[in-house]
Amino acid sequence: MIYFDHNATTPIDPLVVEAMMPFLTNFYGNPSSLHRHGRAVKTSIEQAREQVARLVNVPPEQVIFTSGGTEANNLAILGVANHRHALFGKTEHPSVAEPMACLNALGAKTEAISVDKNGLISADCLNEKLTDDTGFISIMYANNETGVIQDVPQLTELTKTKGITFHTDAVQAAGKMAVDFPSSGVNLMTLSAHKLYGPKGVGALIHDNKTELTPIITGGGQEGRYRPGTENVAAIIGFGKAAQLAVQQLEERHQHLHTLRAALEQGIQDISGLSIAAQEVGRIPNTTQILMDNIDGEMLLMQLDQKSICVSSGSACSSNSKEPSPVLAAMGYPRKLALSAIRLSLGQQNTLGEVAEFIAVLKAIVSR
Amino acid sequence: MIYFDHNATTPIDPLVVEAMMPFLTNFYGNPSSLHRHGRAVKTSIEQAREQVARLVNVPPEQVIFTSGGTEANNLAILGVANHRHALFGKTEHPSVAEPMACLNALGAKTEAISVDKNGLISADCLNEKLTDDTGFISIMYANNETGVIQDVPQLTELTKTKGITFHTDAVQAAGKMAVDFPSSGVNLMTLSAHKLYGPKGVGALIHDNKTELTPIITGGGQEGRYRPGTENVAAIIGFGKAAQLAVQQLEERHQHLHTLRAALEQGIQDISGLSIAAQEVGRIPNTTQILMDNIDGEMLLMQLDQKSICVSSGSACSSNSKEPSPVLAAMGYPRKLALSAIRLSLGQQNTLGEVAEFIAVLKAIVSR
Repeated sequence: MIYFDHNATTPIDPLVVEAMMPFLTNFYGNPSSLHRHGRAVKTSIEQAREQVARLVNVPPEQVIFTSGGTEANNLAILGVANHRHALFGKTEHPSVAEPMACLNALGAKTEAISVDKNGLISADCLNEKLTDDTGFISIMYANNETGVIQDVPQLTELTKTKGITFHTDAVQAAGKMAVDFPSSGVNLMTLSAHKLYGPKGVGALIHDNKTELTPIITGGGQEGRYRPGTENVAAIIGFGKAAQLAVQQLEERHQHLHTLRAALEQGIQDISGLSIAAQEVGRIPNTTQILMDNIDGEMLLMQLDQKSICVSSGSACSSNSKEPSPVLAAMGYPRKLALSAIRLSLGQQNTLGEVAEFIAVLKAIVSR
Repeated sequence: MIYFDHNATTPIDPLVVEAMMPFLTNFYGNPSSLHRHGRAVKTSIEQAREQVARLVNVPPEQVIFTSGGTEANNLAILGVANHRHALFGKTEHPSVAEPMACLNALGAKTEAISVDKNGLISADCLNEKLTDDTGFISIMYANNETGVIQDVPQLTELTKTKGITFHTDAVQAAGKMAVDFPSSGVNLMTLSAHKLYGPKGVGALIHDNKTELTPIITGGGQEGRYRPGTENVAAIIGFGKAAQLAVQQLEERHQHLHTLRAALEQGIQDISGLSIAAQEVGRIPNTTQILMDNIDGEMLLMQLDQKSICVSSGSACSSNSKEPSPVLAAMGYPRKLALSAIRLSLGQQNTLGEVAEFIAVLKAIVSR
């Protein structure tokens, strides 16, 4: 089987599973318990916190573990008090766009910032939307469908002296490129373990420890009261290990993915009517969004599946919908072309042989 | 090591770990993905949903998986619209009491219902608090500290014709006694996997599918939109297996725990100044809360820890506080006696030999 759907989720690195195993077996204590069985687990969680902190270059005190990226995005958006006027990118993940709609329903004014044909938010576009009332902005680091990287440090430059809280969803960026919280200029950043060879069920909100943040779940002292509930211990340990590996292997992973994607994009370029979204701008190195004249993306996905090749027709989260991707719509793609999109997202276990096989299969399907 | 802290958390049953392993290794797909790797995982999640549903005798459509009991309690309380007047027991877990305080801060009227000296809420006490405005009630099934079982079916009898939503936190009850959602009369019920030999990081809210419920986290279609975010797949599968085992082994577990606890309570009854909270009323069979004149519970916990015996001095969630347990305070225990409390919560791997050893160690410590 060829798995080209790493932006939906990644396999867990065997070293991560190995790190988790003791916490699924012998080290089962509740980290809040005062006895030795609890204390040992508590210590391990704090080590994992340091590992995750190092991924984005912050002190461990800035890491709030959550149940995943969706919860972290919700915590950032719903948890920052008093955003009179809130802005977010038009190509944000639903776990940003939907809580924004909730805020709106509660009386805050929320607005989506337009993107250009490459999915980029320009400083001008952001500037235009800023008002004296703007209190909160959420702009993703890298897009889940196209891989496009926003220039977050440039955008935060515009807002940092204005007392605006800036959040970025870095779920797709972390582990695939260097992400440095301090120099990014943001106040809050979302991470997820299962996009970087860690387990599902755990993420983090990185907090500058200055922004006032109200928990969305209450009822215990865990995670500095920002996220109560018995910790998902094994998953947190796994997240720590995955973060450590991502830091250690960043260069080689980056190089490997670049090589694979270059071969992929080179190999499909002569398919008639095929284009690649945002090909000319900076993208995370593993993602290629293909669009093709007169092709139904979901049908193509199913045909590839018959050949044991796993890809996505858009973001996995909206895969039950027959609407075209809102990301491609925001970039100005006409409906029919947007419905042809398939997303290839490569991973560290993929090989040049798999890329070649995919190219051959795709060409065979398209030529029919 | 002797582990008598099963109400804080349980070891994961080896059969549960075995069931989880494929989903930490080969079956890593995102259940929302349309390709075979996603569909296979989706099918397994639906099997786990059936297993959890059977634990409390509901159809699988009534199970909403959450990140744990704390989140499920928050979802029940914050997610039920328009509770003009909300009631909860005085001995509820903080993950019920704190969201109630949040509601209060948002303008709802919330009130705590008194308990008697055994921690029980009488029909009269509940009746007294009901007003025409009462829209929501949360009363736990079994208490985490004392093990006391509320008569939930009797209490729901009082409210069911009044259009009141009744929620119960059954985290400590499920797996230790038969819990039947339909005959309990509640509309919402909270469950947690890691209290019944399943993994941490997963729980469920059982929903009657009639009560209007607003999600507290938004941004995707998972769990019928009640709980978006990529599913914590391995943990959900583990929860399913743990629920299946709990159903299969309920009788023998119950018998085993009864035997152990009878030996325990028999063995300590001649310790001078010792009493057992709520000993005369119905309790889950694994829990004994001990109180002793002139003893500091936390000190005793540490001394037992030195002898490799793990117990709790109250609920694990409030173990960093030097306040007496609010549960014992609500039951009318004076502060000093309440601070002497230690909680013993037995589990299926415990033995009569461990009980005997504990009794001997406790007597040796107390006699000093």
